[in-house]
Amino acid sequence: MPVKTIDWKNGTVRIVDQTKLPGKLVFLDCHTPEEVWRAIRRLAVRGAPAIGIAAAMGLALGARASRASNRAGFMKEVKRIARYLATARPTAVNLFWALRRMIKVAEKAREAGVPELKKILEREAIAILREDNDICSRIGENGSSLIKEGAGILTHCNAGGLATGRYGTALSVIFAAHEKGRRIRVFADETRPLLQGSRLTAWELTHAGIETTLICDNMAARVMYEGKVDIVITGADRIAANGDTANKIGTYGLARLAEVHGIPFYIAAPLSTVDLDTPCGEMIPIEERDPDEVRRIGELWIAPRRVDVYNPAFDVTPARFIRAIITEAGIVRPPYKKNLASIVMKAEREKAVMERKPAE
Amino acid sequence: MPVKTIDWKNGTVRIVDQTKLPGKLVFLDCHTPEEVWRAIRRLAVRGAPAIGIAAAMGLALGARASRASNRAGFMKEVKRIARYLATARPTAVNLFWALRRMIKVAEKAREAGVPELKKILEREAIAILREDNDICSRIGENGSSLIKEGAGILTHCNAGGLATGRYGTALSVIFAAHEKGRRIRVFADETRPLLQGSRLTAWELTHAGIETTLICDNMAARVMYEGKVDIVITGADRIAANGDTANKIGTYGLARLAEVHGIPFYIAAPLSTVDLDTPCGEMIPIEERDPDEVRRIGELWIAPRRVDVYNPAFDVTPARFIRAIITEAGIVRPPYKKNLASIVMKAEREKAVMERKPAE
Repeated sequence: MPVKTIDWKNGTVRIVDQTKLPGKLVFLDCHTPEEVWRAIRRLAVRGAPAIGIAAAMGLALGARASRASNRAGFMKEVKRIARYLATARPTAVNLFWALRRMIKVAEKAREAGVPELKKILEREAIAILREDNDICSRIGENGSSLIKEGAGILTHCNAGGLATGRYGTALSVIFAAHEKGRRIRVFADETRPLLQGSRLTAWELTHAGIETTLICDNMAARVMYEGKVDIVITGADRIAANGDTANKIGTYGLARLAEVHGIPFYIAAPLSTVDLDTPCGEMIPIEERDPDEVRRIGELWIAPRRVDVYNPAFDVTPARFIRAIITEAGIVRPPYKKNLASIVMKAEREKAVMERKPAE
Repeated sequence: MPVKTIDWKNGTVRIVDQTKLPGKLVFLDCHTPEEVWRAIRRLAVRGAPAIGIAAAMGLALGARASRASNRAGFMKEVKRIARYLATARPTAVNLFWALRRMIKVAEKAREAGVPELKKILEREAIAILREDNDICSRIGENGSSLIKEGAGILTHCNAGGLATGRYGTALSVIFAAHEKGRRIRVFADETRPLLQGSRLTAWELTHAGIETTLICDNMAARVMYEGKVDIVITGADRIAANGDTANKIGTYGLARLAEVHGIPFYIAAPLSTVDLDTPCGEMIPIEERDPDEVRRIGELWIAPRRVDVYNPAFDVTPARFIRAIITEAGIVRPPYKKNLASIVMKAEREKAVMERKPAE
């Protein structure tokens, strides 16, 4: 079973301290919004969904400790804490989304007194976690049919539970196949420059008892050539309307190598990753990161200090190299333009129906 | 101009201390066989040709300092020093080859007295360096015609001057194109796990004033996709009779990626790398190295300490993905089985004629 990256236990937010991985599995118990803020700031918790969950729970902690005697005073205090938590990682979209959702649910409960509002906020934070777990486990369930008994699976970066509440996306598929008793072997690319594969994925998979072999990124082609890989699965940062997919640098090369070796290449991602407003991959800007990520590891300089570096954070894999996209609502196959639009629309209609329900 | 990795100056062997790279360019002056032994042992000098040259020069230093009064005593002392130098890197074939060649030339000069023998050994050590430089510069000259004005060149690992006397193999082609005034840009793969690309190639190229961009191995596909690469050139560790080529892990993947992007892929290597007794790549054993090379960098653990690792030192690129092989005797194109055999035979015939000459 994958570790619970983040959990709520009786007024305590328990977080896996990812700065201690892969060396040690240390749980961090946070009792105040300030402790959660520090955990987010110093990257003890990372990954967009996980940050959102942590922030929501941090807000619930603050609400719980409030001594406000009336609704107005309580709401004022909660909003102040939300603004404070939002400063922990100023670029994390999920952080703002989760905090806004928390404030909204409290505002909606117009008749509730302070004790009830505290309960509502606690329930909402736990709901955000559960929804994330639910999406991830449905991705896993949907994708697991693609993993055959004895399969060799190659993955890149960390599309794992450590970035989400628990299961992850690409790794959720692997966890699900493993839990169904299928014998599998995972090859985890170390994923330079930030080594999410060796630091996080290799740790997560071995911790869950899954046979895992760590390789350097440049060994993937050899492992494919040796016939050890039956399927490649990665996560996604953004999927354009035509299926072109931005993901961690190195994904595109893997997709091309999979193609020439006759190995199917899959993306596993929640529908929230699909951006129908972006028509194709060429429209996705590629972030270039600090050259020192490539020039040094920790305090050790591994290259000349002033050498030119090209350090794109992502690459784009054209849709034609992607066999299918595994989502919580099902496996989407080409033609992606039509099929992605229809699955996203359908999910939005269902969500709208769900949200209207309480008012009916 | 590339730096002189190893040089002989009036009874001093001057070696670039590669353990100080890429941080600092430090020259190590060795005056005794013991100093050369230590330089080889602690990897201050590395790369098969460079080790052979260093050992030969170490022996010349020992001979120079000999106080033997007669030929027999001198030869006994020189052989003792050769046996000692051979222990510096017990697996380095070039080390034994160079030392045997030195002993042989002294034994052949039956009439020479001690002072003359000292000179003969010094000349032979310098000849080994010059021959290596000559082979490398002819590889560079032959390959430079393939590098067009404005070319983007991708290379992997360090097939550079630091492994040889001065010019290297793949890098010799690049140096030659640069010296001809061609505007070029080199993309250097960092080459995990041992990072020869970032530590050595990036340093060598920038030191020679060549525009160089360091990338992680998994970025090569993206750089090709962006149209920045016109040619890929790597070295070789061993070339089978049919042209299948073993080289640093990652080379095979590059060759496949080059193919799908329509980019020509070349090998640059001396004819001594061609092994006509090995019919094809499947017969080349792939050395697996210490998993800790992947699990940690310096003292820093970057992966779980006990995670399984696959760490092949080399991979094999099938001949059909190699556009041509650049050697000191010319550019060899397919069909390799026929053309490699004929160029190797021709070179051996010429060498035999050269060696017979003094006796004629």
